[in-house]
Amino acid sequence: MSLHLQRDVEKLKKEILKLGTMVETAINNSILALNNREMSYVDEVLKNEEFINEMEVKIEEDCLKILALHQPVAGDLRFIVVALKVNNDLERMGDFAKNIAKRAKELMQVEPLATLPAFVNELPDLVRTMVRNSLDALVKLDVELAQEVIDMDDKVDEINRAMYDEVTRVARENPDRTKVAISLLSTSRYMERIGDLSTNIAEDVIFMVDGRVVRHAD
Amino acid sequence: MSLHLQRDVEKLKKEILKLGTMVETAINNSILALNNREMSYVDEVLKNEEFINEMEVKIEEDCLKILALHQPVAGDLRFIVVALKVNNDLERMGDFAKNIAKRAKELMQVEPLATLPAFVNELPDLVRTMVRNSLDALVKLDVELAQEVIDMDDKVDEINRAMYDEVTRVARENPDRTKVAISLLSTSRYMERIGDLSTNIAEDVIFMVDGRVVRHAD
Repeated sequence: MSLHLQRDVEKLKKEILKLGTMVETAINNSILALNNREMSYVDEVLKNEEFINEMEVKIEEDCLKILALHQPVAGDLRFIVVALKVNNDLERMGDFAKNIAKRAKELMQVEPLATLPAFVNELPDLVRTMVRNSLDALVKLDVELAQEVIDMDDKVDEINRAMYDEVTRVARENPDRTKVAISLLSTSRYMERIGDLSTNIAEDVIFMVDGRVVRHAD
Repeated sequence: MSLHLQRDVEKLKKEILKLGTMVETAINNSILALNNREMSYVDEVLKNEEFINEMEVKIEEDCLKILALHQPVAGDLRFIVVALKVNNDLERMGDFAKNIAKRAKELMQVEPLATLPAFVNELPDLVRTMVRNSLDALVKLDVELAQEVIDMDDKVDEINRAMYDEVTRVARENPDRTKVAISLLSTSRYMERIGDLSTNIAEDVIFMVDGRVVRHAD
């Protein structure tokens, strides 16, 4: 790899990590909005979404510049292509964080459920770990860490299914709380989608490093 | 554009359209499974998902080959990058079609709702049109058609919100039908996500042709 290409790729990695941190913060704030019922967190998420979008556009432009300027091949080319996909995935995670924040705002306006399903707290921690680890795996080209992210996704799906049963139960026993229960289910689905996107990143890392297509192993 | 590059880009366009047709068929079959309560359609979707995934892997490889071999710049480079993203979007649509088919299978095993919300039929037509038109817009570089796709997404969101209210009403009035109602809501959400992905494609077309970032206009 030429020194210039190496420098530009390092810069690109830093930008992606920066975007990743912005997205993680958005996820954190959207969960805080949900749990603490505080509008300031919602505002924070909505304000930062603009910056996330701007950053995504900038990173895509930088990838295109690297491709045009250095015309990388083999592993370097593959890395830039993965960076383009990860960039897209991160921006979509930001969208889901925004969706969670919007639901949190709706939920603030109504009385909360008497008992929240216990796993509501487990899911955000799991999903945030997946986001962070998938980006670490990308930057360090760490296949083992990527595999851990993929394995965590089963747990997320499991929690989400339990959430689904719980919400159905709540709605059945307290029909007037149906709307609240369904809104809560939506937030858990958005978290599941964020987990999915982290899994995509992890799968791309494994493909890039090992040439193994794991993304459709199911 | 060199003749060789031109030939490979034409081949790539054909492959993407072929993948698009496969995904459209999967969406059609998943909707037929839902409406006609017939397992054969579910089987069809699950069987074809493998081919969709194989096709996605092949198209990504072909894009990488074109980048490495022809080292395209400017508009050609932008097209290949968009093709990579569209390829990804199409494979995700296939996943959502699979999710709809799985829900359809669940719903077959229980008594259907006495009255289905009227817009259940409107949504699939709308979403399928969005998928087809977004791919047409890509291949013809048709910005107007792409804008139509983006405009249709508002209608999809509107139907989905109405669906949400309807399902809440059904669950409230017939608590024992809550699970069915929520499953139905899931299918409508999967369709909404397919619409979102078509919108992504349309937005990428506009950016590629006009340089306008519309994707975050919201």
